[in-house]
Amino acid sequence: MSPSPVISDAASFDLGAWTSLQLAQVEQALERWVAPEGQVPVSLAEPMRYAVLGGGKRMRPLLVLAGAQAVGGSPEAALRAACAVELIHAYSLVHDDMPCMDNDVLRRGLPTVHVRFGEAAALLTGDALQALAFELLTPDDGSLPADTQARLCRMLAQAAGAAGMAGGQAIDLASVGLPLGSEQLHHMHRLKTGALLQASVLMGAACGAAQPHSLSALSDYGRAMGLAFQVVDDILDVTADSHTLGKTAGKDAAQDKPTFVKLMGLGPSQNYAQELLSQACASLRASGLAHTAPLQALADKLVNRIH
Amino acid sequence: MSPSPVISDAASFDLGAWTSLQLAQVEQALERWVAPEGQVPVSLAEPMRYAVLGGGKRMRPLLVLAGAQAVGGSPEAALRAACAVELIHAYSLVHDDMPCMDNDVLRRGLPTVHVRFGEAAALLTGDALQALAFELLTPDDGSLPADTQARLCRMLAQAAGAAGMAGGQAIDLASVGLPLGSEQLHHMHRLKTGALLQASVLMGAACGAAQPHSLSALSDYGRAMGLAFQVVDDILDVTADSHTLGKTAGKDAAQDKPTFVKLMGLGPSQNYAQELLSQACASLRASGLAHTAPLQALADKLVNRIH
Repeated sequence: MSPSPVISDAASFDLGAWTSLQLAQVEQALERWVAPEGQVPVSLAEPMRYAVLGGGKRMRPLLVLAGAQAVGGSPEAALRAACAVELIHAYSLVHDDMPCMDNDVLRRGLPTVHVRFGEAAALLTGDALQALAFELLTPDDGSLPADTQARLCRMLAQAAGAAGMAGGQAIDLASVGLPLGSEQLHHMHRLKTGALLQASVLMGAACGAAQPHSLSALSDYGRAMGLAFQVVDDILDVTADSHTLGKTAGKDAAQDKPTFVKLMGLGPSQNYAQELLSQACASLRASGLAHTAPLQALADKLVNRIH
Repeated sequence: MSPSPVISDAASFDLGAWTSLQLAQVEQALERWVAPEGQVPVSLAEPMRYAVLGGGKRMRPLLVLAGAQAVGGSPEAALRAACAVELIHAYSLVHDDMPCMDNDVLRRGLPTVHVRFGEAAALLTGDALQALAFELLTPDDGSLPADTQARLCRMLAQAAGAAGMAGGQAIDLASVGLPLGSEQLHHMHRLKTGALLQASVLMGAACGAAQPHSLSALSDYGRAMGLAFQVVDDILDVTADSHTLGKTAGKDAAQDKPTFVKLMGLGPSQNYAQELLSQACASLRASGLAHTAPLQALADKLVNRIH
């Protein structure tokens, strides 16, 4: 019996080359779409571009594009979705860094937006980036069918809002110093980071057509990856140094935040991350989709990353 | 010759009764749609509902509903659009009131959101309200055609974002203490308050079908009303007392903000507001639409208000 197409596809897949290709498109699109010269007041354009174009892993856009490729989705729609998700992520970082939240002064080695441009500008920058995410999803040039636009807006709004990312942050805020149980910790992270990561995969898939059971499998993949991402984050906060991490290590403990490491210990957390990776890969196999190599490689990289 | 339908329609129109009817629907819908029990973390649901359900003039929802009625638009779509616009307005107030912006402690006689719930919660509340606005516009129950959903999201995102409200606020922020000329002052307000007020009328109209020349006329009406709203605001800041106004009077001068009164004087500002009202009414007549009585009465009330 010859190996299944999924396995052979994955074995020969070059994640590095794939990522370079995708990132080139994403960076170019963001460069073009985020506050282009002359269309936005300069005092807002500057911090918006500073917040978005400063790099980053672009994990969410990559998940969108990989999700779209898994279902043979429209590359044009997927690129818009990828950038929209990244804008939501970028706005959340700008607001999170503010003094009333995490009060972070550095991000990716550079001054955070509020340090560089002032708190009021940071607040408006985040607000404008969120609006821009929905603007990117609703072009008026006939390039994206209306039902795709509406579906993408719905998925993004739900993932970003009170029952998603913002809700998770609110739970996080209310949980500092409290002993969260496993279920509460999972719930918080499912909302705080999981919702947008899962939505990334599914928004990608919404750029094409897929059978319900395939979508359900991608949804499982996204849920496992969202959770794994946070478990690994908690592990790295303990095991990595600040330089490798690109942000302050040991912050969770210092801020008395509930983490998976605190809840279950370091070794079990590492096992848990690997188990979630297995679950994610199993979901991809169950999807019945042929082109899941990028999703599989991204999952592997995300769980086995060192920063 | 008998009077035209528009005139007779307007003459017999009871704005008070109409407003009561519309507001009952809007309040009920907001009550139902904003962070309903059990669907959103309590620590976020509470400030979200506090920020939105605390009353207010609901000028923007009324403009949406009046705009929809002018074109015979879908009441279901219009109600969603009305609430979505109000959520954007509400989020902007929550963020504007924060210490890093206007540092206001009272709104409508009650503690502002950050005073009542803390700054971090206020930040998240605004963020979640913005996301909710787009969620309301994209129901998954077949109640709203996808192209209407997409169009409404596009209009709202543009009006709220960097080339609209957020952009206007950024200009405002950068203009304190600067001597703005007439053109700059108009530009700032066209973005800061004008964009969302104009979008309200046009989003209402997008809930139905209208000829291009009618839409163009409604757009002119919305632009004139958006500007008139700000001119009257500037006038009231000088002429009204804080009690009548429901907010601190004389704040513009105290904060050295550029205003129309400062630019052109009180009398000319009052004349300008009346001129804008005339323009708005002329646009309605030019629209060729029959049911513009609510829009006309709203314009009159907005310009001749005392608070």
